[in-house]
Amino acid sequence: MSNWENNIRKVVPYVPGEQPKGNNLIKLNTNENPYGPSPKVKEKALAADALRLYPDPAASDLVAAIAKYHGLSEDRVFVGVGSDDVLAMSFMTFFNSDKPILFPDITYSFYDVWADMLRIPYETLPVNDAFEIVPEDYNKQNGGIVFPNPNAPTGIYMPLASVREIVSKNPDVIVIVDEAYIDFGGESALSMIDEFENLLVVRTFSKSRSMAGLRIGYAMGNPVLIKYLNDVKYSYNSYTMNRPSIELGVLSIQDDAYFKETVEKVIHTRERFSAGLKELGFTVLPSSTNFVFASHKKVPARELFTGARERGVIVRYFDKPRIDNFLRISIGTDEEMDTCLAVLKELL
Amino acid sequence: MSNWENNIRKVVPYVPGEQPKGNNLIKLNTNENPYGPSPKVKEKALAADALRLYPDPAASDLVAAIAKYHGLSEDRVFVGVGSDDVLAMSFMTFFNSDKPILFPDITYSFYDVWADMLRIPYETLPVNDAFEIVPEDYNKQNGGIVFPNPNAPTGIYMPLASVREIVSKNPDVIVIVDEAYIDFGGESALSMIDEFENLLVVRTFSKSRSMAGLRIGYAMGNPVLIKYLNDVKYSYNSYTMNRPSIELGVLSIQDDAYFKETVEKVIHTRERFSAGLKELGFTVLPSSTNFVFASHKKVPARELFTGARERGVIVRYFDKPRIDNFLRISIGTDEEMDTCLAVLKELL
Repeated sequence: MSNWENNIRKVVPYVPGEQPKGNNLIKLNTNENPYGPSPKVKEKALAADALRLYPDPAASDLVAAIAKYHGLSEDRVFVGVGSDDVLAMSFMTFFNSDKPILFPDITYSFYDVWADMLRIPYETLPVNDAFEIVPEDYNKQNGGIVFPNPNAPTGIYMPLASVREIVSKNPDVIVIVDEAYIDFGGESALSMIDEFENLLVVRTFSKSRSMAGLRIGYAMGNPVLIKYLNDVKYSYNSYTMNRPSIELGVLSIQDDAYFKETVEKVIHTRERFSAGLKELGFTVLPSSTNFVFASHKKVPARELFTGARERGVIVRYFDKPRIDNFLRISIGTDEEMDTCLAVLKELL
Repeated sequence: MSNWENNIRKVVPYVPGEQPKGNNLIKLNTNENPYGPSPKVKEKALAADALRLYPDPAASDLVAAIAKYHGLSEDRVFVGVGSDDVLAMSFMTFFNSDKPILFPDITYSFYDVWADMLRIPYETLPVNDAFEIVPEDYNKQNGGIVFPNPNAPTGIYMPLASVREIVSKNPDVIVIVDEAYIDFGGESALSMIDEFENLLVVRTFSKSRSMAGLRIGYAMGNPVLIKYLNDVKYSYNSYTMNRPSIELGVLSIQDDAYFKETVEKVIHTRERFSAGLKELGFTVLPSSTNFVFASHKKVPARELFTGARERGVIVRYFDKPRIDNFLRISIGTDEEMDTCLAVLKELL
């Protein structure tokens, strides 16, 4: 090893869900939305000439559209390159204590990756046997708290009263509620940001708005939190959101009818698909998201995962304690899910 | 102050160059390219339906196009959201020593911002009275080195032999050569990446490729450096490059004739404009970039800056030691630069 290698930050890199090339696969492995973005987005001709100019560093048009949509003042909204960027910035901005931050043992697989990379101490708290987060466990010394609601990859929604309990019992640290999937079920913690100044609510355009390819995420909280986030963001990369993201993001927010219609379609398909899985003998956790988390009594998940892949259906399998007999299956169109059910039936 | 504020990372945020809205201004303040991207980019219809899918986390198509263009293997290329993202990731990955990193006192204004935010110790080394970097100054204990070549905001190019001296005298640390402006003049350090495994060369699409609005930057170096960068990138945000950036970036790289033609036009206008400035009594530093750095003997730069702004021409003024009597003026079209000269003449 050369001497220059001594000072390199060495991390075990996160492995993203497979993004296969080619069109012959039914891709149900990364919780994408089958319907594509609003027709308003599709009609938009990209103003290529404007690409020569830097984007607005504050992405003001997008911030304004999001703020208006949620009935907030603009100083309560922060935008970033997907909710991953927003969350990573939030970890960097808010989690600087010597005490460990807390998150569930079964949760979004990026939390421990960010903590490791940013050298933030952390402690994971086990979800219960029904895979639910236990609010009272979070009533202990910590340097901050983060959890998704609904949780991933379980899909389980925690009632708002429980979120309130966690936030209110931890007034001295920042509590981040990662609501990547909230549009598919459950009540948002957004209603509490006036009441709790230590609460940050994070959202994404990648799931319910069908724009994973554009990378747009945002956070909402009190103006002091948003200011600190922006200070760090401007110190890291002033121009993170590119012009297509800002322009097309605004158009997506403005087309609420299309948004609601496609979210309803996904929910309808999810319920139909969950019923189909149960008929095949699967245990299906109650999902409030655009995916289901399911386990079969007789056939190991790994086997089903491999078999489905060979038959052109990609789902997600996590080789991790407690969940290594589950499949996470994203909700596509009714037709795609029927094919998925047929393939699973064949494998059982 | 609430208790939760104690653990917040507090930084003095970077203030980006002004991005005014409205079209009546001649904007010469942030080194954008007047010509717009390749017609190939303009003709491309954005595949909006594909926006529902995550981008390729490795941005393989773009990496392949860049590698092919420079005659490198693909494992020697790293891409990011503008060279700011690439440089910030590089600071985070490579600058983890207790010894200070080194960079010039007059240089890109983001280096100290990143160092402060990432808590990296640093030392600035003064450029000489001709505003040139002095290579032998960098022959001292350090935790890494970074400098732009050509330097900004001076525009001065350092001969490759001097770059070689700095890199070869510092084999135990990573040396980053930030070549944001190299296409407008000077020889690239790229020719030395085989010879020096501690050398990283960084580029951007924002200047010579006229795509500041899209945010594309890249780094080239030995495969071990690129691997470490990717590990950190995947641990921070797997999907940073969005689909429009990847698709349109490839098209830009492929249209080399347009690229060379517009770069030549900018260089031609720069020389013409520099001559005009000298006729007005300005001292103009020798520029190898798409901007000039100029000072007038009689009228203070601040006064010229304000007067030009009032007359619809925005240039950049830095209220910093040693350079507070200079203007940095980006090169626009010949017509824009003629207007700029006329306005300056009026103000003198």
